[in-house]
Amino acid sequence: MRLRELPEWQKLAQCAARMSRDETHLKYLTADAQRLNEFSLKGGGLFYDFSRQRVDKKTMEHLFDLGRALRIDGQFRAMTQGERINVTENRAALHTASRDFTNRPIIMDGRDVTLEIKALGKKIKCFADDVHEKRIVGSTGKPFRHIVVIGIGGSHFGTEFVAKALEMFGTPGMSIHFLSSLDSYHFEKIVSSIDPEAALWVVISKSFKTVETLANARLAKEFMKQKVPDCDAHFVSITAAKDTENDFGPPDQSFHMFDFIGGRYSVTSAAGGVPLSLFLGHDIFQRFLKGAHDMDLHAQNAPLDKNIPLIAALISVWNTVFLKYGALGIIPYAAPLSGLCPHIRQLHMESVGKSADIDGAMMDEPAGTVVFGEPGTNAQHSFFQLAHQGKPFPMEFIGIIKPWHQTYSGSCHGVSNHQELWANLIAQPIALAQGRPNHDPARSFSGNRPSSTIIIDELSPETIGGLLSFYEAKTVYEAFLWRVNPFDQFGVESGKKTASGIRDEIRRRNEKKEGGHLEIHRPETGAIEKFYMDMLFQGE
Amino acid sequence: MRLRELPEWQKLAQCAARMSRDETHLKYLTADAQRLNEFSLKGGGLFYDFSRQRVDKKTMEHLFDLGRALRIDGQFRAMTQGERINVTENRAALHTASRDFTNRPIIMDGRDVTLEIKALGKKIKCFADDVHEKRIVGSTGKPFRHIVVIGIGGSHFGTEFVAKALEMFGTPGMSIHFLSSLDSYHFEKIVSSIDPEAALWVVISKSFKTVETLANARLAKEFMKQKVPDCDAHFVSITAAKDTENDFGPPDQSFHMFDFIGGRYSVTSAAGGVPLSLFLGHDIFQRFLKGAHDMDLHAQNAPLDKNIPLIAALISVWNTVFLKYGALGIIPYAAPLSGLCPHIRQLHMESVGKSADIDGAMMDEPAGTVVFGEPGTNAQHSFFQLAHQGKPFPMEFIGIIKPWHQTYSGSCHGVSNHQELWANLIAQPIALAQGRPNHDPARSFSGNRPSSTIIIDELSPETIGGLLSFYEAKTVYEAFLWRVNPFDQFGVESGKKTASGIRDEIRRRNEKKEGGHLEIHRPETGAIEKFYMDMLFQGE
Repeated sequence: MRLRELPEWQKLAQCAARMSRDETHLKYLTADAQRLNEFSLKGGGLFYDFSRQRVDKKTMEHLFDLGRALRIDGQFRAMTQGERINVTENRAALHTASRDFTNRPIIMDGRDVTLEIKALGKKIKCFADDVHEKRIVGSTGKPFRHIVVIGIGGSHFGTEFVAKALEMFGTPGMSIHFLSSLDSYHFEKIVSSIDPEAALWVVISKSFKTVETLANARLAKEFMKQKVPDCDAHFVSITAAKDTENDFGPPDQSFHMFDFIGGRYSVTSAAGGVPLSLFLGHDIFQRFLKGAHDMDLHAQNAPLDKNIPLIAALISVWNTVFLKYGALGIIPYAAPLSGLCPHIRQLHMESVGKSADIDGAMMDEPAGTVVFGEPGTNAQHSFFQLAHQGKPFPMEFIGIIKPWHQTYSGSCHGVSNHQELWANLIAQPIALAQGRPNHDPARSFSGNRPSSTIIIDELSPETIGGLLSFYEAKTVYEAFLWRVNPFDQFGVESGKKTASGIRDEIRRRNEKKEGGHLEIHRPETGAIEKFYMDMLFQGE
Repeated sequence: MRLRELPEWQKLAQCAARMSRDETHLKYLTADAQRLNEFSLKGGGLFYDFSRQRVDKKTMEHLFDLGRALRIDGQFRAMTQGERINVTENRAALHTASRDFTNRPIIMDGRDVTLEIKALGKKIKCFADDVHEKRIVGSTGKPFRHIVVIGIGGSHFGTEFVAKALEMFGTPGMSIHFLSSLDSYHFEKIVSSIDPEAALWVVISKSFKTVETLANARLAKEFMKQKVPDCDAHFVSITAAKDTENDFGPPDQSFHMFDFIGGRYSVTSAAGGVPLSLFLGHDIFQRFLKGAHDMDLHAQNAPLDKNIPLIAALISVWNTVFLKYGALGIIPYAAPLSGLCPHIRQLHMESVGKSADIDGAMMDEPAGTVVFGEPGTNAQHSFFQLAHQGKPFPMEFIGIIKPWHQTYSGSCHGVSNHQELWANLIAQPIALAQGRPNHDPARSFSGNRPSSTIIIDELSPETIGGLLSFYEAKTVYEAFLWRVNPFDQFGVESGKKTASGIRDEIRRRNEKKEGGHLEIHRPETGAIEKFYMDMLFQGE
């Protein structure tokens, strides 16, 4: 199937031509008193306003038709029921099952996987409770006060987002650190701020083959061996590699990663569950899961034209394919949400950035877009010049009605800091959409720059769970619309293979170094590789 | 002048057609043994390799012709000599003068401004030395140990980049914090980690009209009043607003911001100089300035076809305009460079993101591109799926030959962590350029994805100064190529004006709240504004 040949696709191309005319400028669309009412929705714990997107009713109808033609809602339900929709790896994608509170069984290969998920959840709860109640302590008897998570990519960004967002709910006295970078400077910074006797290292690696995680875990083990008597007690592992799980931590401190939950969707499984239960407490983690589950139910059951993540996905494809924007900005007006954008950047760019479709055919054009962002109002002082007057790109604004209870509340010009944040959150999408003409082109604003606004009631475990699930569902729906597999990531393999050859050569040079022989053994090492390796070795 | 009508522009459009043919795929271009030699340069303290960009000799010649036709080298020199090239604001742009060690005078309005710059530098040195040698201490007699910088945008990102990059050179026992966000949660986090009696607050605001900075500075003052007897002694201000400078700190703790240095170019002036001299010591800051000056001399004097920032600017315009890429990724393979990308994002997007040209005419297309990034290898585990197989975008890789002296050095597979970082730094541009065909489209890599590689010898004040100056010069050259003014930012005004109206309305509601009257006074407050304001007030 070629997307371009679908009649729904062609109708949308016609819509794009109409929506590019002067009379469909957002300043006219948003002047309609019914606009906000008709282009906004409530559901799954959040409010979604797409009235400042460059769509009209007709466009939305054709977008819904496209969604129907591609049966994306059916695919989403199939995913939640355990079908092997990760076709290239012949796996299910059951992140929604990791927070399912409905007690319905999900049968895979003749077994109900929800039983395994529940057993694992219980093990996590017991372990976290034991740590908090000091039944499990460090080998010198000190209670654990520092969680150091060793993991990269999908074992890092999502969990750090949630830990930052819900930090105020953290277990008193407990700190959390994320060791992801290969640069040992990162390791030094972390160990200089913790007491090794009170440190619990959580090593997360599905295969125990990820170089960064393995190198950091070994460095941590060497470090701990010198600091505490029985260093094994200070390690926890989260892995699917059963044979090596004893390398890091005792068996009752090893937690299973299911092959049916991919890294970037694993925040609500053990990869996020162990560190977050340790940092936040298991009750807070359960509330977070419930928030995610509520949004899952909405994403799964709401009709196509009332389904918030589905509509957000339709609009994302519309903006990228039909209106040809080159990036998406995500701007949360709340400092605790500073980890949201790095997580969504991976989630989206790794899930949708593909050039082969689900039939295994090369697509006409590669899919995906660049996602970037920064909390507001800092973002305004960083890149809103481009947003208002330069090359345009769509944005998603995120606001929180009730701020976290604050000891100090600033004010300026008769409004509180939180109200000032909101004045900007309200103003920016309007200014972007409507523009502001001026006889001087340098001071003139063309407007017609699209955005959505997402509002949650307060900063709570439930709303952060909902926000996570919203973006997961949006991403999956968007991949279904592009007809790509959101759950594989073969795109990272080519660089890995090239790096592996260079690493072999560096190792050979290391071995030869003492004898003074530096020679290239592999004829396939080209001139560029050799040039840079020489540069590296001259510095040593 | 219309860029599209220039013969040089039209020739480049023809080059783009040629460079899009199969036979000009990067896998063929990079197979040439002379490629690296001919498409790389050394200068200003760094090595720049553009051999993996989609250019051939002919393209480069036409790019140089474009640079010559637009006289961008002459404009750059005019800038360093104090001409008022910020035409919309009738100002000079003399950030290079803030680190000029040549002793040549720069005459503006009949006076030599280098004398003022030197006098200010001396004042900064004296103050920083007095703080370090404990001649200036807190009002209860404690030496200052915490620098809290209050500033946003141009008064924040650049200084934070340098502070993070050179943290290992920091004055022992001194910590630095950046308070930028309006969200009071950010304020709470900072004050919970400092001793108020040892805290020195550095308030940076050109006009003292920036709402975020004013609100945070007032909050800080209220806080400090309750904690120490003479709180003025704990404040420093950096401003051009002479009349209000006494509001925060005594006169000898007030430092002048020149109107001829814009916020995002102000790291080497007082805005960066005061906090960085306090944090790093004045000697380290001087070495940083010298590194920037060395690159300035290269950027100013190297011939067009040997000029590294100029060539980087030509390639950026080539990629954006002629090859139509929608974003630029910046990937430093060094954890201490984590602040580089947020700084360059502002520097580039605010300088180039314009729709009016320097003649004051509307351009055919708005200028600029999205800049984003993350240190490697973390970036590989975040968005390199899109980079290799999805919608392509160019990248700039940055490597450091000698790592910072490390207490702990990990290893894996027989290579050190630093060597592993380099294996990836070498491998990624090759894999992106050459591709890796496979009969299975899901595992096939089309290649032909462009990147540059920038190498510095070591992490030092000089090399970080050089890197900062490289990106400043690249950005300015790029703006000259687009024919936009890199020094104004009227694009942020529209949102500010809309926010101001909403703030007025919120204030009125606050005043009426006690009486129970909530009414809209301003007829121009539209339905959308009212809807969101109601939402906010229902939460209060």
